[in-house]
Amino acid sequence: MESKIAAYSGKAVQERLEWLGQFGSEPNGGVSRLLYSKEWMEAQQSLKKLFADEGLTVQFDEIGNLFGRLEGTTYQDETILTGSHVDTVKNGGLYDGQYGIIAGFLALKYLQEKYGAPLRNLEVVSMAEEEGSRFPYSFWGSKNIIGQANPEDVKGIKDFDGVSFNDAIHQAGFDYKENPMKVRDDVKSFIEIHVEQGNVLETEGKSVGIVQHIVGQRRYTVTVNGQANHAGTTPMGYRKDAMNAASRMVCAINDLAVAEGDPLVATVGKMILEPNTVNVVPGKATFTIDIRHTEKDALVNFTNEVEAKLREIAERTGVVIDIAMWMDEDPVPMDPNIVRVIQEQCEKNNLDYKMMHSGAGHDSQIIAPAIPTAMIFVPSHNGISHSPDEYTNPEHLAEGVNALICALYELGYKE
Amino acid sequence: MESKIAAYSGKAVQERLEWLGQFGSEPNGGVSRLLYSKEWMEAQQSLKKLFADEGLTVQFDEIGNLFGRLEGTTYQDETILTGSHVDTVKNGGLYDGQYGIIAGFLALKYLQEKYGAPLRNLEVVSMAEEEGSRFPYSFWGSKNIIGQANPEDVKGIKDFDGVSFNDAIHQAGFDYKENPMKVRDDVKSFIEIHVEQGNVLETEGKSVGIVQHIVGQRRYTVTVNGQANHAGTTPMGYRKDAMNAASRMVCAINDLAVAEGDPLVATVGKMILEPNTVNVVPGKATFTIDIRHTEKDALVNFTNEVEAKLREIAERTGVVIDIAMWMDEDPVPMDPNIVRVIQEQCEKNNLDYKMMHSGAGHDSQIIAPAIPTAMIFVPSHNGISHSPDEYTNPEHLAEGVNALICALYELGYKE
Repeated sequence: MESKIAAYSGKAVQERLEWLGQFGSEPNGGVSRLLYSKEWMEAQQSLKKLFADEGLTVQFDEIGNLFGRLEGTTYQDETILTGSHVDTVKNGGLYDGQYGIIAGFLALKYLQEKYGAPLRNLEVVSMAEEEGSRFPYSFWGSKNIIGQANPEDVKGIKDFDGVSFNDAIHQAGFDYKENPMKVRDDVKSFIEIHVEQGNVLETEGKSVGIVQHIVGQRRYTVTVNGQANHAGTTPMGYRKDAMNAASRMVCAINDLAVAEGDPLVATVGKMILEPNTVNVVPGKATFTIDIRHTEKDALVNFTNEVEAKLREIAERTGVVIDIAMWMDEDPVPMDPNIVRVIQEQCEKNNLDYKMMHSGAGHDSQIIAPAIPTAMIFVPSHNGISHSPDEYTNPEHLAEGVNALICALYELGYKE
Repeated sequence: MESKIAAYSGKAVQERLEWLGQFGSEPNGGVSRLLYSKEWMEAQQSLKKLFADEGLTVQFDEIGNLFGRLEGTTYQDETILTGSHVDTVKNGGLYDGQYGIIAGFLALKYLQEKYGAPLRNLEVVSMAEEEGSRFPYSFWGSKNIIGQANPEDVKGIKDFDGVSFNDAIHQAGFDYKENPMKVRDDVKSFIEIHVEQGNVLETEGKSVGIVQHIVGQRRYTVTVNGQANHAGTTPMGYRKDAMNAASRMVCAINDLAVAEGDPLVATVGKMILEPNTVNVVPGKATFTIDIRHTEKDALVNFTNEVEAKLREIAERTGVVIDIAMWMDEDPVPMDPNIVRVIQEQCEKNNLDYKMMHSGAGHDSQIIAPAIPTAMIFVPSHNGISHSPDEYTNPEHLAEGVNALICALYELGYKE
């Protein structure tokens, strides 16, 4: 099956990514482009020039989101927005975030060249920040777009060098007023294209994913208090071994998750023992749980089931358990109409797609409650992300741009 | 049941311990007396004076083991030795090591006062070092007594401040020749009395333990290599989760140990995950196993069983495992004749004893292969050791001294 549109070669998309990836490039091939850094400013200014050179109307908002606009001829108070974030994690890859900007730009360029001006405005956005890598704050770009960023929340925060958030934004040259930004009411749809950051598409041999939900998450810290004892002089029957108890909890969490089945995932990613010494029975184990699902009820039911199971194991192993939930984010559904448009276009154009969910967080989850939103994924080789080893096959990059073009054409050029 | 001998009150023994504990006392109540330190020298010099004042012949060997001798009248080429180590861990307690020295001294004092000179020489030793707390070397005192300390092994080692071992011993004023010491051939028996460092005696309500074996130990580092993946985007079925695999291994080790039963103990005391982050499926888990048993065959069979089980779990969970054994010490039996003498004396004198093993390492395990050796334990409250919270009830301290007196009387005063 070959797709019916061939807007760009894989090489053409790849070259644009490499161009943008030079701003903040690291000797090891990674990219570090932290919010309001010199590299970040170079990237945004270079994108501004690129957009302008291709005839887009360019504009920064007051916090540094960059917009490039193709004016509509008929419905000038209606805008179809696409794009993603320009910031990276420290030593990240060439695709996360910036692929959504390059793909949006290339889509607008292709549509303009092939079909001229759209009926509705088409805009690409290079959002200021999503990763939370410089300051302890995430989604600064998208939260400002929908007026959900509270200036009080960033006022006191500092980066690792002690630079305050407000100093950083002013030093970058933005006229930040420390008031919530005025929200635009013309944006009718948002489509973000992004690398999957998982290995589902690759494993199933698909080029494009159409996201129906972004998962909700609950995160916990579990503290298991047993009793530290001498590893040689304490018979097995006299122990309250926090590592033994915690291990039984980890096994139970995994068994419950496997039994529940997709799309539920549960992860114990962090485990800290005390005193963590070869010859002492661990007195304390602290571990995290990260649980995600696309449906809120299922997420709540599963986490309740896990909590009950952990308490039962604690009871049985004679340890004292504390279960603290510190993140509780609801799942976010994508807009069914835009999802349907993308799916129809993928069908019509022979794009090899899969309906799926996003297990990772994205700007789209911030924007979706305010603006009808959808996401398109392309495969991530081995699911690797937030690493210089992040890689997407150029053919998949081009196929993603094709899917975006088809969707934007439907939304921007049709009555 | 009241014991028939009442040599010392608990208070009298406790006061002697507090006197010795003042050398190296910490503001929090702990004791720090590292090998060849100023505090260590003060303790050894003060013991030397104490021994001499009570009429013992005193002598340092060239590495700083201090001996106090009650000369025998009949068999002057036969010596019955008792004692323990004078060094402590950093911020240790009042009992570990120094109780064996004080108890030995008080036993000799009592016997001399009550029965006069013995047939065989009775000696108390305050051994230089057991804990390995200043330099990365343990059992320096006892290894020298039996001629098993190799000067080459300590020549290059340094303490945390960069002071070399040889400089430290010379600075402490000892005429250390850097040659293996001449081994005495007159020592016919060694009895060490020590706190249990476990909670068996306390749990069973006994005053005195008679040690039949010191356990052998095998220690391992197990490395579990899975695959680090995004915790949100990697379905359960696609994971190679090192924490999940390691947890199943920890459960299996504990289940096998409980099934094997006493005196086998197995401990996973240390666990390190990588990257150890809430939202990443762990790619690597490294943990230690500490396995102890009083019988070599049982130790070997059990560790073989554990290794096979871990490999089976690795196979089943799709991870790659490396199992590295880095300690393999054989169990050490105590001398059955001395053990019998102690047991008979405990019976005769109504001492409330228990036959048991030592799950911890002691100078006695070094000395036993060269000299017939036995150990007596007294209870450790809550099994706490190597801590300022280390505590033994004064009545138990006195009961331990009684047991030692009875045994030394049998060995030193009888034909």
